[in-house]
Amino acid sequence: MKTFLYANDLGDLNRALAEAAEIKRERYKYEHLGRHRTVLLIFFNNSLRTRLSTQKAARNLGLDVVVLDVNQGAWKLETERGVIMDGDKSEHLLEAVPVMGAYCDLIGVRTFAGLSDRRADYEERILRQFIEHSGRPVFSMESATAHPLQAFADLITIEEHKRTARPKVVLTWAPHPRALPQAVPDSFAEWMRAADVELVVTHPHGYELDPLFVGDARVEYDQMKALEGADFVYAKNWSCPGVTCPDDYGKILSTDRSWTIDAAHMAVTNDAAFMHCLPVRRGMIVTDDVIESPRSLVIPEAANREISATVVLKRMLESL
Amino acid sequence: MKTFLYANDLGDLNRALAEAAEIKRERYKYEHLGRHRTVLLIFFNNSLRTRLSTQKAARNLGLDVVVLDVNQGAWKLETERGVIMDGDKSEHLLEAVPVMGAYCDLIGVRTFAGLSDRRADYEERILRQFIEHSGRPVFSMESATAHPLQAFADLITIEEHKRTARPKVVLTWAPHPRALPQAVPDSFAEWMRAADVELVVTHPHGYELDPLFVGDARVEYDQMKALEGADFVYAKNWSCPGVTCPDDYGKILSTDRSWTIDAAHMAVTNDAAFMHCLPVRRGMIVTDDVIESPRSLVIPEAANREISATVVLKRMLESL
Amino acid sequence: MKTFLYANDLGDLNRALAEAAEIKRERYKYEHLGRHRTVLLIFFNNSLRTRLSTQKAARNLGLDVVVLDVNQGAWKLETERGVIMDGDKSEHLLEAVPVMGAYCDLIGVRTFAGLSDRRADYEERILRQFIEHSGRPVFSMESATAHPLQAFADLITIEEHKRTARPKVVLTWAPHPRALPQAVPDSFAEWMRAADVELVVTHPHGYELDPLFVGDARVEYDQMKALEGADFVYAKNWSCPGVTCPDDYGKILSTDRSWTIDAAHMAVTNDAAFMHCLPVRRGMIVTDDVIESPRSLVIPEAANREISATVVLKRMLESL
Repeated sequence: MKTFLYANDLGDLNRALAEAAEIKRERYKYEHLGRHRTVLLIFFNNSLRTRLSTQKAARNLGLDVVVLDVNQGAWKLETERGVIMDGDKSEHLLEAVPVMGAYCDLIGVRTFAGLSDRRADYEERILRQFIEHSGRPVFSMESATAHPLQAFADLITIEEHKRTARPKVVLTWAPHPRALPQAVPDSFAEWMRAADVELVVTHPHGYELDPLFVGDARVEYDQMKALEGADFVYAKNWSCPGVTCPDDYGKILSTDRSWTIDAAHMAVTNDAAFMHCLPVRRGMIVTDDVIESPRSLVIPEAANREISATVVLKRMLESL
Repeated sequence: MKTFLYANDLGDLNRALAEAAEIKRERYKYEHLGRHRTVLLIFFNNSLRTRLSTQKAARNLGLDVVVLDVNQGAWKLETERGVIMDGDKSEHLLEAVPVMGAYCDLIGVRTFAGLSDRRADYEERILRQFIEHSGRPVFSMESATAHPLQAFADLITIEEHKRTARPKVVLTWAPHPRALPQAVPDSFAEWMRAADVELVVTHPHGYELDPLFVGDARVEYDQMKALEGADFVYAKNWSCPGVTCPDDYGKILSTDRSWTIDAAHMAVTNDAAFMHCLPVRRGMIVTDDVIESPRSLVIPEAANREISATVVLKRMLESL
Repeated sequence: MKTFLYANDLGDLNRALAEAAEIKRERYKYEHLGRHRTVLLIFFNNSLRTRLSTQKAARNLGLDVVVLDVNQGAWKLETERGVIMDGDKSEHLLEAVPVMGAYCDLIGVRTFAGLSDRRADYEERILRQFIEHSGRPVFSMESATAHPLQAFADLITIEEHKRTARPKVVLTWAPHPRALPQAVPDSFAEWMRAADVELVVTHPHGYELDPLFVGDARVEYDQMKALEGADFVYAKNWSCPGVTCPDDYGKILSTDRSWTIDAAHMAVTNDAAFMHCLPVRRGMIVTDDVIESPRSLVIPEAANREISATVVLKRMLESL
């Protein structure tokens, strides 16, 4: 595996889930794979869970880890040719990226959507530069439009906790005070479509996800109706994806707190498990009682980030 | 050992000192203990000695180390339930702390006193959150009111350099231009009381340390009288602990430079060794000639931070 | 080797080049040397290539690595004796530096020239403090006036790509919008003089390099004339070294873009290879076509930073 950005980069998901289960039983089983290998983790944006879980995963595999924090916006790379670089950009990506590749074997990149230029975000311009110019296998640690390590951890969690062969999984928008990227719901929708679940997506009008990710999944604008009989409720805020209203890309279209997941919402489900990628704003996304209930999976879900990252790094090491 | 905050967490101090001596002779003797184990070091505040010495101690034990710098004040955790998190706090401690525990085996936390809310500081609210919610053994790397790794290193240093079975140890306040926490004098007083030394504490009126730490140790307000016959002089500034004057908690009550330790102060001692936890402001806490004298132990004392941390981490690993 | 700052610290350069070639073939050959040893990398200034390549080199040798980022200017060390430290300097170097040495076996320091006090820069005051007071072998990771790990990597690159026994190497100044230190051209000139090459230096009047580094190397003020028949063109900007015009130390004297290396410049060479230490500003230092041509060595040159650092760390480990 030379790139990890979309669900199909991983191939057969059932095989991947079996690997995840194996690694969870014996985390250091493949420690020999990373010997004399180095993974470079580049953070253009903040990270807590990804930073910690990916480092742990790398060490599970015996990899040396080098973490590079790029000050947010402070390190500006020129991306165009023919430019006289006499401004604030001190380096061209055509030099910077191959050089970073020279000192490692694998590269992970975290870079958030700018939420102003939809095309630049959806083309994954920064991640693509690493894929094209680093000379190394590259994996997303959440990039502009996808967070596949999270979606894979979500899938592992659903697999571990499902009570029926083909559970009903509801991805529901919920309010948030800040405009957030679509990376998490994008990848979650994409991975659930690739998995053996019944996916329903629910959100206010205008929040339609990009077809690249949501495909022909059922969209239900009535949240309560969507939640009926759900086995898993996956709540998440996102800003306008600009699919049905391009001029509103990246904006907050609704602050409707009736979408906040509370006991009344959960009451219509099939005693559903509650999921969220974290960090989560209580009172906005979900109430205290729901997130603290025995059916809340947010902590084991976060813990599975170590497992998903270990499988992904293992696959990349095997491809070297 | 599941928590390391106070002297009695370590149990018999003589046994701990013997372990320290053993590790100092052979630093990697217990390297096998940390195999396939990870320690997470979380810094809410600046650190030089603690950052370096604790990493070295962890590697002595074969532990993987993950360092997490939390921007000072930038990462605000909600701590109350029932709150609608629509402000600047993006995560609740009830999610953040267990997640951090999910990716490691041991957690060290550095967090300074705020010096405005005495009760919050003396309840060690932030450290307690990690102890209660992380699911992992937690040790203080200096917290609001205690710096036990420093006090243990101080004790090791005194043990190594004492010339009598029960030396006289004087903890003396000294002036400083900024308001500093009480963590170092608190722990020093507490550990010296638990050790086999004669402790005398001296400071201007109003600087009385909390009884939790200072107990019934002798307090002498006449600094020169306190220093008479001392075998060890431990100088340190601290701000008002708010014991005798609660309204002044965290304030500077005195800038009296007659308390600065100079040759005249040392002349009344029993050729005492000089100690300070560093960083130290020369000319305020101590004069150049005293800190540079052959009787100054500040460098070996700092070096012993590696040893105290190795013993503490060893104990925690043995308890897993 | 107890200090690495100048070319002669490395001794016989041919022997060093042979070691570099050996390590390049088998990077982990000396992994046993660093067992139970720790290198501390202290960054007073930004770094990308040095940060990554030196970490990789340390791991090649089995060293534990501790990285310490000192906020630029935020951590101010007092350097004078007899001072009452009641201002913004919270620690004296006579304490800070030995303490850092206490937790490691080797120390690397990055610290840029201030470009205001020529004497302070050329005395390498910060690096010298580590050499004199840390008690450990110290190597420059670019200091005020020298960047020997870069110059050694440059020499390795020239050795690998030279087509004649004694190639003509031209160090040429080129324009840049910011005032840059002289560390790279200083070391490059010094190392080329020590190596078996024909060195020519070219720059506008006023940019004369310090005799300590440039010695009696040929200086040619006519850039095109200098480039005639060159086998290697090494472009770099630097600010006024203050040799011929002391009052202009650290200033920009020229912004003449006729010095930018383009195809017309390269046309007068002997099909020269193009080199630059990176980061490079395209359109200022060099045009896109030159830096992207098959004769551009900037990426392999950067990759050789791992090799030069591995040789240097190996030598230091052997001296312990």
